[in-house]
Amino acid sequence: MPFPFFYSEEIVPPGGIVTLDETASKHVMQVLRMKKDDQMYLTDGKGKKFIGSVHSMGRRNCMVQIQSETNVPPPQQQLTIAVSLLKNTSRFEWFLEKATETGITVIVPLVCERTERTHFRRDRMQNILVSAMLQSRQCWLPSMPDPVNFKEWIPVSTGDIKWIAHCMESEKEPLPKVVACAGSKTICIGPEGDFTPQEAALALEHRFRAVSLGNTRLRTETAALAAAVLLAIQ
Amino acid sequence: MPFPFFYSEEIVPPGGIVTLDETASKHVMQVLRMKKDDQMYLTDGKGKKFIGSVHSMGRRNCMVQIQSETNVPPPQQQLTIAVSLLKNTSRFEWFLEKATETGITVIVPLVCERTERTHFRRDRMQNILVSAMLQSRQCWLPSMPDPVNFKEWIPVSTGDIKWIAHCMESEKEPLPKVVACAGSKTICIGPEGDFTPQEAALALEHRFRAVSLGNTRLRTETAALAAAVLLAIQ
Repeated sequence: MPFPFFYSEEIVPPGGIVTLDETASKHVMQVLRMKKDDQMYLTDGKGKKFIGSVHSMGRRNCMVQIQSETNVPPPQQQLTIAVSLLKNTSRFEWFLEKATETGITVIVPLVCERTERTHFRRDRMQNILVSAMLQSRQCWLPSMPDPVNFKEWIPVSTGDIKWIAHCMESEKEPLPKVVACAGSKTICIGPEGDFTPQEAALALEHRFRAVSLGNTRLRTETAALAAAVLLAIQ
Repeated sequence: MPFPFFYSEEIVPPGGIVTLDETASKHVMQVLRMKKDDQMYLTDGKGKKFIGSVHSMGRRNCMVQIQSETNVPPPQQQLTIAVSLLKNTSRFEWFLEKATETGITVIVPLVCERTERTHFRRDRMQNILVSAMLQSRQCWLPSMPDPVNFKEWIPVSTGDIKWIAHCMESEKEPLPKVVACAGSKTICIGPEGDFTPQEAALALEHRFRAVSLGNTRLRTETAALAAAVLLAIQ
């Protein structure tokens, strides 16, 4: 049984003390019933992995003494999924969990012309990323900027290779056929009603290439996860 | 706007009348507010696509007159995902929806040694397959046998190429590197606690080859969906 695995934004050198947040502390004390000196892994989500041990427990907070620190190399490639926010928030949150598990490094929530809902709960979404990172035993948290307007994002989007998966009739490369190449990769996925022709044209003007994700009509979150799998699992 | 799309198990030749079930009928009458002679698509989930029109509406049931019938060619390959049932049923149901969207043709619910929960609601699961088939505008419903014991299924499992994605240390081919080949394909995904060494050994004795799904630790339903994406999206 491996040590339990926790997240802490604080970085402290070995010997120092980290205070776990209330949720993590409750898990340590009430669920795992850990005792003083019991050991755990911790990560800062920025590539550092610590071994620590329970130092003391308050009513709400658990203090952990850091014993050792190792560096986990960063993901080899920047893999960015830019995807429209969804009316059904749970479907978007589900995508966040799954994309994090696969090892996607950047998630850009998009507001497109046909995006129906732009509500974005940063704290809640961030917690989902953290849980999925810990659950999949990773030490690099995907970065996720605040939602950005598609037309503002396109000109500043980064990536050696950039793709757009729109549903309109056009010349498209099947993503599985072109994905195995070097360099950082970015793909954008539109809302349920698809990108507008103007949005697709703007992307093509900025070095995006049109790709297809198979022959069936996928929901936005399914298309986004399919893209995540094809980009991240090699 | 395409016609709305409905499912009916009955197959009737053009001219005949189909009675939609209560849920579909309510959708026609109360949500879409369709009127007599309004047109819709229907499928039997076995490759037939019909155009029909509202013939009459009772209190609970909508009768549809079939006007024309076309045959949709079957999927080119049999793609089978055999996956352990999950303690968290909603995660398994989520996988059913997504795997159907991608175009997987057979889903085999497995009961493995470490499967924690074997409860299986056929009616509910079947409805999820139907909804996902309609939502992705397909006319072939994935087949899904009742849950089967892993050790009983392995000897009778079909597929020109068969893979097992266990998490134990061993020689493994990365699935994305070997998936692009002809023939019917089958992959099995274990429960949260992984297959037992005995289960993995039994699979290898029956022509299954060990594959990996990347470097991160994926939840069962994430691994199963990643496999579905890699098999179905070419």
